[in-house]
Amino acid sequence: MKIGYLGPEGTFTHQAALKYKKDIKNADIIPYHHIPDILRAVEDGEIDKGIVPFENSIEGTVTFTIDALIFDVNVVIDREIILPIRHNVAAKKGLSKVDVEKIFSHPQALAQCRKHLNEEFKDVEKIQTASTAGAAKYVSESDGRWAAICTDEAAAKYGLEILEKDIQDENHNETRFLVVSKQGTQKFAYEGKTSIVFGTENRPGELYKILDIIAIWDLNMTKIESRPMKNELGKYVFYVDMESANAADISDALKMIERKTKFFKHLGTYHTIRH
Amino acid sequence: MKIGYLGPEGTFTHQAALKYKKDIKNADIIPYHHIPDILRAVEDGEIDKGIVPFENSIEGTVTFTIDALIFDVNVVIDREIILPIRHNVAAKKGLSKVDVEKIFSHPQALAQCRKHLNEEFKDVEKIQTASTAGAAKYVSESDGRWAAICTDEAAAKYGLEILEKDIQDENHNETRFLVVSKQGTQKFAYEGKTSIVFGTENRPGELYKILDIIAIWDLNMTKIESRPMKNELGKYVFYVDMESANAADISDALKMIERKTKFFKHLGTYHTIRH
Repeated sequence: MKIGYLGPEGTFTHQAALKYKKDIKNADIIPYHHIPDILRAVEDGEIDKGIVPFENSIEGTVTFTIDALIFDVNVVIDREIILPIRHNVAAKKGLSKVDVEKIFSHPQALAQCRKHLNEEFKDVEKIQTASTAGAAKYVSESDGRWAAICTDEAAAKYGLEILEKDIQDENHNETRFLVVSKQGTQKFAYEGKTSIVFGTENRPGELYKILDIIAIWDLNMTKIESRPMKNELGKYVFYVDMESANAADISDALKMIERKTKFFKHLGTYHTIRH
Repeated sequence: MKIGYLGPEGTFTHQAALKYKKDIKNADIIPYHHIPDILRAVEDGEIDKGIVPFENSIEGTVTFTIDALIFDVNVVIDREIILPIRHNVAAKKGLSKVDVEKIFSHPQALAQCRKHLNEEFKDVEKIQTASTAGAAKYVSESDGRWAAICTDEAAAKYGLEILEKDIQDENHNETRFLVVSKQGTQKFAYEGKTSIVFGTENRPGELYKILDIIAIWDLNMTKIESRPMKNELGKYVFYVDMESANAADISDALKMIERKTKFFKHLGTYHTIRH
């Protein structure tokens, strides 16, 4: 089985792919550089599964992923993987904490560790990079007294030593990844979490009618987000997650929502794996 | 008047601050490094206005801003500024387009110009930086045959020459900035766009009741987004934008929503400046 994921190695999505691969025989994981490329490779049948980041409890929704699922590709979500996000301070071997002169990481990672960094690395310069894995690579290639905020995997890959573990400020910092497969390759379970997108007429009260349906069938909505229609200013589509243990309720509600909307996609009904 | 904005100079927020400053006598604009710092400086009265990025039509909502407004500070939105986002290819003077060997920019800017870059700079290496202004600075300090994707302002600030203008793929690429001020320093207009956040009981149908109120008073909801409560997994608060020309409708609906929710904040009712 071929599994594509958002690379490079050492990213959080790589962690999710490694966890997912464990339960599958003969799985190859293949890094991609862009989220839409992974989703298109799944749609075209080049790979069997694609793993993409979808939502972080601090960063919010990954708009590349949500927009590709809504507008660009037709694939099915068949699993979600939730990983706790843990940040470490890592540096080249031999450097000790008091010698660190600069710290590199993604702006969100620096922000997520701000309390700790302000206490323990008060006068150390903080420099922003495009990814946490990129910071680790950069530090590994330099002779400066530098450290990176990165994952265990990134530190290992680039030969860095971890000076401090788990330095993030919030305990509930998690990232949600979606595993997607080609349409038609699997049956919906009709239980677990259900993700849909829909577009309504652009009139006051139209969204409310749809949420009425969700309420009537006792589904618990766990996420809602409006996304602007591309090239149609002021028009929106809505992404909704909902949960129910009753498969018949979900099935009936989806039929009704499809009938009452102009645009409708059932992205998947799937189980959650929490690590 | 002191106006704080998300710096450094040359960012899109700096552009918004310069446009806003034009209409005000004796205004100083002051760069800040972090969004929460700007909002807290407004709350504490250190500065009169704060300008922060809130939403991009491709990147989505800036979660630093939305979360700070919901959870951390009490300030009032008194204006929104909408700017079209234009990307340029810029390099040191004397370098011509065919000589460019590497292009630096923020991952989102590279993605927003992908079609053009694939056609015109097919074999040129693309390197991700933490901001578009950072890419311009980096290119200006190097002797490599490098270019940056950045704003007009960033190119001017770092002495770069613009090789190609307006290379973004989408025409409707816009960013929305909020101007905030201290609570109590201004009266709500009760017309224009209204932004609220609220939390409900965690039961199916609770959100639907609130949207019912919005529908009854004929308000047009233009954005909705759920955000997880910090430290309470599975609990959500909702951010909603709505528009109405009828001040009495907005005022009445807000009173009703406040009565029917556990947590409620009226973030502001304000006018839009579109450039």
